[in-house]
Amino acid sequence: MIGEIIAIGDELTSGRILNTNSRFAAGCLFTAGHEIVAMATIGDTAGEIGRALRRAIRRADFVIAIGGLGPTTDDRTNEAVADALDRPATFHPEILDKIKNKSSQSPEGTGQDYEKLAWLPAGAEPLKPEARMAGYLLVHDSKPIFFLPGVPHQMKELMNDRVLPRLALWRGAASTRVLQRIFKVFGLQETAVNQKLKHIEKNDPQIRIGYYPVFPDVHVSLTVIDKNSREAENKFANLTAEIQDILSDCLYGSDETSMAQVVGLLLTEQHKTLAVAESCTGGLIGHKITRVAGSSNYFAGGVIAYANSLKEKYLDVEAGVLADHGAVSAEVARAMAAGIRERTACDIGLATTGIAGPTGGSREKPVGTVYFGLAARDLEKTFKFRFDGDRRQIQELAAQTGLDLIRRLLLDKITKAK
Amino acid sequence: MIGEIIAIGDELTSGRILNTNSRFAAGCLFTAGHEIVAMATIGDTAGEIGRALRRAIRRADFVIAIGGLGPTTDDRTNEAVADALDRPATFHPEILDKIKNKSSQSPEGTGQDYEKLAWLPAGAEPLKPEARMAGYLLVHDSKPIFFLPGVPHQMKELMNDRVLPRLALWRGAASTRVLQRIFKVFGLQETAVNQKLKHIEKNDPQIRIGYYPVFPDVHVSLTVIDKNSREAENKFANLTAEIQDILSDCLYGSDETSMAQVVGLLLTEQHKTLAVAESCTGGLIGHKITRVAGSSNYFAGGVIAYANSLKEKYLDVEAGVLADHGAVSAEVARAMAAGIRERTACDIGLATTGIAGPTGGSREKPVGTVYFGLAARDLEKTFKFRFDGDRRQIQELAAQTGLDLIRRLLLDKITKAK
Repeated sequence: MIGEIIAIGDELTSGRILNTNSRFAAGCLFTAGHEIVAMATIGDTAGEIGRALRRAIRRADFVIAIGGLGPTTDDRTNEAVADALDRPATFHPEILDKIKNKSSQSPEGTGQDYEKLAWLPAGAEPLKPEARMAGYLLVHDSKPIFFLPGVPHQMKELMNDRVLPRLALWRGAASTRVLQRIFKVFGLQETAVNQKLKHIEKNDPQIRIGYYPVFPDVHVSLTVIDKNSREAENKFANLTAEIQDILSDCLYGSDETSMAQVVGLLLTEQHKTLAVAESCTGGLIGHKITRVAGSSNYFAGGVIAYANSLKEKYLDVEAGVLADHGAVSAEVARAMAAGIRERTACDIGLATTGIAGPTGGSREKPVGTVYFGLAARDLEKTFKFRFDGDRRQIQELAAQTGLDLIRRLLLDKITKAK
Repeated sequence: MIGEIIAIGDELTSGRILNTNSRFAAGCLFTAGHEIVAMATIGDTAGEIGRALRRAIRRADFVIAIGGLGPTTDDRTNEAVADALDRPATFHPEILDKIKNKSSQSPEGTGQDYEKLAWLPAGAEPLKPEARMAGYLLVHDSKPIFFLPGVPHQMKELMNDRVLPRLALWRGAASTRVLQRIFKVFGLQETAVNQKLKHIEKNDPQIRIGYYPVFPDVHVSLTVIDKNSREAENKFANLTAEIQDILSDCLYGSDETSMAQVVGLLLTEQHKTLAVAESCTGGLIGHKITRVAGSSNYFAGGVIAYANSLKEKYLDVEAGVLADHGAVSAEVARAMAAGIRERTACDIGLATTGIAGPTGGSREKPVGTVYFGLAARDLEKTFKFRFDGDRRQIQELAAQTGLDLIRRLLLDKITKAK
């Protein structure tokens, strides 16, 4: 089906906010086999919203309109829909009830403020009112028009849970089988991944391979679209195996799996525990690990050893080693990893020490230089990396590299030799 | 002036690339006093490009079209312009000369490949041909239409060096003044902020106030647009003062300032140092603090005390206190904060302990319960919060609340009484 996406909000037309919603929606729809003919971005002005909607309905098979559904006075989408499509606003008491139930714990913003959310254009079918999310489907001129909230995580949830399944069932769209997987790669550039994989597209119109740099990773999407379900499944299984083989151990996971989840699964399987000693990553590795539910089963915690005094006090790094080699050195990374492992009695200790910038670099150790220490029962090893980017990117790359080193250790990809 | 932006490229409509160009252009134009009525994103299809151009010329005072100017076969903008605006392609030998001169150093892509870049629609005035950049101005129906390359750094250079100066001279456009500020609020719901501020909009068409939930904050944008520069400045200053007064200490900063930066500035001003003891936030507070360049001047680091054993060993929390009250308790938060402050000899110690979920909750301490401990020279205090959301949201809310407590402490908003 051919679709059009309309993003609504003054924060977008003034350039204040980057429009990530339209891109996410376009990406999902594209990989589900739809074609996006146009994406419009307009301000919170009822007249403009109405014009964009009417134009989109005229030329597309379906429309996704994102934003302007909130409870505040600057949200005008419903008003515009009521006018432009001649669908007077109708009150849905059941929506208000659900909202009130949900917000009963928080003292502020109950009742009145949210009443606006319960007024929808006539014929609107709320998509997920039980989750206190705005968003509804309107069928106009026999075409589905999905109105989604501009809050990114809500928009994503509704796209995945409601919009894509409904579109798949729309007028025989269901007879086509679409299989998709995202392969997550770390440690290779997008162009290098492209070079390795481009021969497998084979000019087959039913196969689509997409490359997306999703910092600090590269994601590869494989999509197989076929009328014949059995054939699609075979093709998909063969290609999946081929891609896994080619990307080898640079491929760390697929779909929604994060690097920290992969590490958590490996630690759980091997009944091992982990502790970290973070200098330049400042807590980011601990944060990534503890974002995973259940991480307390294998993660003891660690030390954010930002100041040298903490490296000494909490990790038993000797003052002489710090003075002789500097805090950013293989020797200190090694001592930090060994120190945190010993103090916490964990199976694995991981340490980072480096220069995240923008200042602090020197000719020998420029900004982006990061040393990693890895300590395990029969292993004590250090690694030196030089990352490109700004402070934030260097910290992200260092944290992901630290996790990747643990993954490789647990997969026996790191030799025991010192 | 009222403008429209058109971004062209299949990589945009398939969701493969995030459209940062349109946002950059919108931001520059907005702050230069122009209004963007719509931003369109379309694929590399000549018919679609032509339709979008004609529509934009009809309703806007100027148009910025970005992308599709490159030398490869999938770039179709010039072809579309020639057709849609009836301006046959014309060869510009002087452009080809400049390209050839410029590209003589690079072994690839000389001559033939670039000849396409020298064919422009009749009437086109190249913007910066000496830099081997595509991009030209076309005046159609007395309206300026700027065609810019999709390569972000080239687009930015041409926007700043060519487009903005030309537009400023176009028919007295320079007389409108636009002033904008973003107010960052934490600890109030979007609807509550709206309630507090909605009376100041006063139906004045020159004032715009926008509300944006940017989790975990709420952002309020104030925009004043006026022909008279002096009047706009007065209005803006008065409204800014009024908003600051109303939002009071829930307003933590403005524009690009993060909560961690505000905390860093206060610590620097007051010559104080900070250390953290994080349980449920797992390193996120340390990460937010160390994302700020120069944070090593006031941040010593701390302990990610995820396991109870680390709370004992590294923070001197007594085993009896843990056993009697449980790890998630005011008593443990207090001991953690005091412990990290004492061990690191910092001025301020901050501790978090709570239940981020999805499991681990009980009737007395449901998921989302988080205790904070704050220790300073003459203060030892705990706080209990109950956050809504999933694991990730609870961790984000807890980290931001922890930083906000330090901010309030440094602003003397926290009473010394225990």
